[in-house]
Amino acid sequence: MNKFRFLTAGESHGKCLTAIIEGLPAGLPIDIEFINQELQRRQQGYGRGQRMKIENDTVEITSGVRFGKTLGSPITLVVKNQDFENWQKIMSVAPEDITDEKAFSTFRPGHADYAGSVKYNQKDLRNILERSSARKTAIEVAVGAVAKLLLKELGITCSSKVTQIGSACCEENFHGEIDIMKDQGDTVGGKFVVEYKNMPIGLGSYVHWDRGIDGRIAQAVMSIPAIKVVEIGTNPLGYKGSEYHDELFIKDDKIHHKTNHAGGIEGGMTNGEDLLVSAVMKPIPTLRKPLKTVDINTKEETEAHFERSDVCAVEACTVVAETRIAWILADEILLKFGGDTLDELKNNYYR
Amino acid sequence: MNKFRFLTAGESHGKCLTAIIEGLPAGLPIDIEFINQELQRRQQGYGRGQRMKIENDTVEITSGVRFGKTLGSPITLVVKNQDFENWQKIMSVAPEDITDEKAFSTFRPGHADYAGSVKYNQKDLRNILERSSARKTAIEVAVGAVAKLLLKELGITCSSKVTQIGSACCEENFHGEIDIMKDQGDTVGGKFVVEYKNMPIGLGSYVHWDRGIDGRIAQAVMSIPAIKVVEIGTNPLGYKGSEYHDELFIKDDKIHHKTNHAGGIEGGMTNGEDLLVSAVMKPIPTLRKPLKTVDINTKEETEAHFERSDVCAVEACTVVAETRIAWILADEILLKFGGDTLDELKNNYYR
Amino acid sequence: MNKFRFLTAGESHGKCLTAIIEGLPAGLPIDIEFINQELQRRQQGYGRGQRMKIENDTVEITSGVRFGKTLGSPITLVVKNQDFENWQKIMSVAPEDITDEKAFSTFRPGHADYAGSVKYNQKDLRNILERSSARKTAIEVAVGAVAKLLLKELGITCSSKVTQIGSACCEENFHGEIDIMKDQGDTVGGKFVVEYKNMPIGLGSYVHWDRGIDGRIAQAVMSIPAIKVVEIGTNPLGYKGSEYHDELFIKDDKIHHKTNHAGGIEGGMTNGEDLLVSAVMKPIPTLRKPLKTVDINTKEETEAHFERSDVCAVEACTVVAETRIAWILADEILLKFGGDTLDELKNNYYR
Amino acid sequence: MNKFRFLTAGESHGKCLTAIIEGLPAGLPIDIEFINQELQRRQQGYGRGQRMKIENDTVEITSGVRFGKTLGSPITLVVKNQDFENWQKIMSVAPEDITDEKAFSTFRPGHADYAGSVKYNQKDLRNILERSSARKTAIEVAVGAVAKLLLKELGITCSSKVTQIGSACCEENFHGEIDIMKDQGDTVGGKFVVEYKNMPIGLGSYVHWDRGIDGRIAQAVMSIPAIKVVEIGTNPLGYKGSEYHDELFIKDDKIHHKTNHAGGIEGGMTNGEDLLVSAVMKPIPTLRKPLKTVDINTKEETEAHFERSDVCAVEACTVVAETRIAWILADEILLKFGGDTLDELKNNYYR
Repeated sequence: MNKFRFLTAGESHGKCLTAIIEGLPAGLPIDIEFINQELQRRQQGYGRGQRMKIENDTVEITSGVRFGKTLGSPITLVVKNQDFENWQKIMSVAPEDITDEKAFSTFRPGHADYAGSVKYNQKDLRNILERSSARKTAIEVAVGAVAKLLLKELGITCSSKVTQIGSACCEENFHGEIDIMKDQGDTVGGKFVVEYKNMPIGLGSYVHWDRGIDGRIAQAVMSIPAIKVVEIGTNPLGYKGSEYHDELFIKDDKIHHKTNHAGGIEGGMTNGEDLLVSAVMKPIPTLRKPLKTVDINTKEETEAHFERSDVCAVEACTVVAETRIAWILADEILLKFGGDTLDELKNNYYR
Repeated sequence: MNKFRFLTAGESHGKCLTAIIEGLPAGLPIDIEFINQELQRRQQGYGRGQRMKIENDTVEITSGVRFGKTLGSPITLVVKNQDFENWQKIMSVAPEDITDEKAFSTFRPGHADYAGSVKYNQKDLRNILERSSARKTAIEVAVGAVAKLLLKELGITCSSKVTQIGSACCEENFHGEIDIMKDQGDTVGGKFVVEYKNMPIGLGSYVHWDRGIDGRIAQAVMSIPAIKVVEIGTNPLGYKGSEYHDELFIKDDKIHHKTNHAGGIEGGMTNGEDLLVSAVMKPIPTLRKPLKTVDINTKEETEAHFERSDVCAVEACTVVAETRIAWILADEILLKFGGDTLDELKNNYYR
Repeated sequence: MNKFRFLTAGESHGKCLTAIIEGLPAGLPIDIEFINQELQRRQQGYGRGQRMKIENDTVEITSGVRFGKTLGSPITLVVKNQDFENWQKIMSVAPEDITDEKAFSTFRPGHADYAGSVKYNQKDLRNILERSSARKTAIEVAVGAVAKLLLKELGITCSSKVTQIGSACCEENFHGEIDIMKDQGDTVGGKFVVEYKNMPIGLGSYVHWDRGIDGRIAQAVMSIPAIKVVEIGTNPLGYKGSEYHDELFIKDDKIHHKTNHAGGIEGGMTNGEDLLVSAVMKPIPTLRKPLKTVDINTKEETEAHFERSDVCAVEACTVVAETRIAWILADEILLKFGGDTLDELKNNYYR
Repeated sequence: MNKFRFLTAGESHGKCLTAIIEGLPAGLPIDIEFINQELQRRQQGYGRGQRMKIENDTVEITSGVRFGKTLGSPITLVVKNQDFENWQKIMSVAPEDITDEKAFSTFRPGHADYAGSVKYNQKDLRNILERSSARKTAIEVAVGAVAKLLLKELGITCSSKVTQIGSACCEENFHGEIDIMKDQGDTVGGKFVVEYKNMPIGLGSYVHWDRGIDGRIAQAVMSIPAIKVVEIGTNPLGYKGSEYHDELFIKDDKIHHKTNHAGGIEGGMTNGEDLLVSAVMKPIPTLRKPLKTVDINTKEETEAHFERSDVCAVEACTVVAETRIAWILADEILLKFGGDTLDELKNNYYR
């Protein structure tokens, strides 16, 4: 990230999640309700477990915004973990509070547990899972909501939808598929597509590999926990060149593409068509019917630890993907159009 | 890129392609023959056109290496464009040589032509295509070959194979598929998988979104010209959680995964299993049987410009993907293990 | 910053200052008392005004540390603004709280007011001063204290001293100089030197301009508010080459420098001698005896706004400089020696 | 560097120096004669040695420019080392050419030799000096000349002058001072000031430490080989607040500063006044009258190696500083004003 830069922090059962965003222009209206709505969208979806009922995330802004508008200075976002009082001792910063309550030692397959314990040399796997948990996507969604507020000012809008759950490709069957998995103590993944409309031409570039906006979006989406596949536009597998490429035509003196297989990106740049990004989420790896694994202490085979979890989180994941793509678009727009205030940015953008 | 950083430059018909790599340790043996072999692998594959016969890329090193070993200083790689003498005037740097010879004005669908001409405000589309051409992947492969030389010192090896061409999923049918497309004046894409073996545990991290090695690899592969899909490991679509996740077991006192659906990455980190990255390449957008498009000058509908081209370049693309993944692995290894000399790096790595 | 990266946020009279640090190894002991001591050192020194008596900064850690040690995940530091309850409405995030209480409109010479109001298009200069204030160095010192904790583990220690106040070069006269200025309603700057001992050889590099550790330190120190001069080692002005350069000799089979005019840096690298960095701080620009200026609204000449302020803050500034240099050293050490845990880092460091 | 990014490469006696610049807008006229003039300015100045007469640097551009204008793609600059034919074998890339001709083993005090040999574990100190030599500033000046071409388009102009040589502060005495040192086999440093005129308001920012343009300039100048002191504006040592700060007044409806002690930077931002940056260069460390040192092989005390060198290079250094500051200004301007073409940038800039 070059202009829209940020860091996020926070453990799953720590006091709070925090983000600092640096690089937004001054004068951008910050609608806290919108951020909270995005946080709530992330907590919804059929197939979610207990935690989503416990927590109702809301954001607090502690810097960078005054009287509803950005100042140009870094913005701090805080999302409290509402269950923290029950975890205060277990997650304590203080050395004297050390305890093995809630410690656990069985590597959950499909999670960061095993590689993380080797990398950071931890015996209590809680020290891995607290940060590797998808809980951290809550604050990422808050950051993305701020990015979306910038995009909205330029008329860029976003939507997304789930296109497959397990083996069900038809929307009416999604809930049934999830119910079956729930009954089996199993979990299920799926596929979704994110769409951005009213896109400008020329975000990203072909001039250097790391300036391609397709690559940047792929990074943002693939690094979402549980995502294993990212597609831009239509998967070209099986298409001939004459079928796949989006021919051009003139209408009302403006150039359009007849189709949008490219998903709005050609040559690493947005081409003015709708941006279409799909991704496949793997099934959640924490199963009620536990997977076989190894215990870090006994070095013996055992079954994986099960804390409360979800059967399916594909719907939530679409929100995470939407907002992560918003990060990249915001950054590319700030790079291309400059501006230290929203008005300057808009002037440069609309010229 | 944090430690293994580089820039590449060069137009398709300019004098040469150049790269500068900064951040390698001192003492790394640089085998120029290996780099040249990689350049040749990139030029091969069934379905390539005329240019691959004209050019036989080789690299020249003009800095950073002395008596066969890196000095720790930046390395310059140069790959000459062997056809340059025929293009010297057309691609001249000098203002007085201005000419519209070889200029062209019809946007080729699927290429950077249209968005690029808007972004950089160019009327002669040669000013776009010269850099957006896949020609630039030649110097990228040279950079990746240097990264592979580092990986080799640590025992990490690489291979790749094409798994689908057009609608043919069976290796024996690949050439037939290409022949049919050639006859039709059409083009065809495909799918391939890259595999890295003998991987260390713990490259990348879950602690911050931009440290996930899955995201970084996805960026490197998705930004290859014509790539539209990237997958890490097995596409999870349709799998249940109990089927997909790689259970752990102990053998000879070491922990292993029973399967490798994760493709060697869990929680944004390498987990010691083989790294598996697949990608889908769209059909080459330059067709002998031209696509419909618009002329930038006349603003009228016309047919796309056709310079010599290939029918299928999936095989070449696997080499590009291999070497781009090598960039990321080299960078992550240098970050994790440190070292200003190869010996220091090896000591830290093998402890 | 490459491995030790962080962002800071917070307005001078906002709710709190926040920092997120990403990139530290796991297992580093975090001594909160030490961080608080550094915060207190920053608030001391002869010549400080009212605010330093109001506020007694302490840090809260809300992520990245458990039971006294880093987890490898991002660390959040929070320093509350203790006067916030009196400013809650004035600094409110909510649009409906808009007020011009405590607004001000006279550009204070020597401050960010004028250029900041142009850049961010603000009429109420409070929107500039709240972030441009040196208040933000409190959280920077907290970040630096964490970096110092890493350096301490490697035996690297730090000290600093003021060497000039106004025109007084002799320590006994410093207080007198400050008293005189206070009586005159004026302010005074000064010079100080920071020293780091037990330095490793080879941090930084000559291989590329942006890898020189002298440049990185100069950036970190020059960007402290009010610093106008940075020197590494002895100012060479007036020395001949034969006098200035630090000759080498052997003692106990180890190489030493006879003198240390270079201040521990040759060729952009640490050379094992003590690191010596001096800087000159300008007089604080907020004077009780006000400077002439212009009012942003009336566009007429007037006198600068005076909120409570200090006569001299050079002593505090030495702490800021110490801890900013600690940022750079921590980053260079992590880059050179690698390691995902403190033990790995130490092993690589001490080999 | 965020938008104006580049890498440089090349050994002092290697084939050539190379730079790749990425991030300039399309449509910028590139005047090769201007770049060559800057290269020649760098080679001039009273007190230079033999090499400056041997070499007459000129640049070749091998990418990124067509018919005199930038394309938006990366620009490759090459400056040949004209003496290379005599060094071809000694600096060969090929392992089989290994030789100890021109090897040397005595650490030159004040150079990178000692720390560099430890860092990169080299016994032949040529492997250090070839890159640590100030020769590399030639290609840096070429990069800076390109940046200056951008600044020129916006009316920003640059000059510099030497203000002290050794102990001589008066211009007429500079040559005399150098002659004396030459007779003594000694060397001498000095001080200079760089001035940029017609500066925009608001480059850089106070909102985050690493966005202060004072810090960025300090890094660029302090990392020039042999620079030990950097000052922005007037050194405030000994000034009272009431004397130092630049009061504001209105003339012709525009705001001006009465003085410019701040050197055009307040609050880490340009304030519209002339940018003034001074620096002190140490005496060149290679003396005809050699310094005492240690031999890396014998581990015995000896005298430093002397290859041809200069008595004084302060004048050349002013050109290096000018062009390095141009890097930072170009980057800040591209960040603030955006634009993918020169016309877009100009429109945004002049609004």
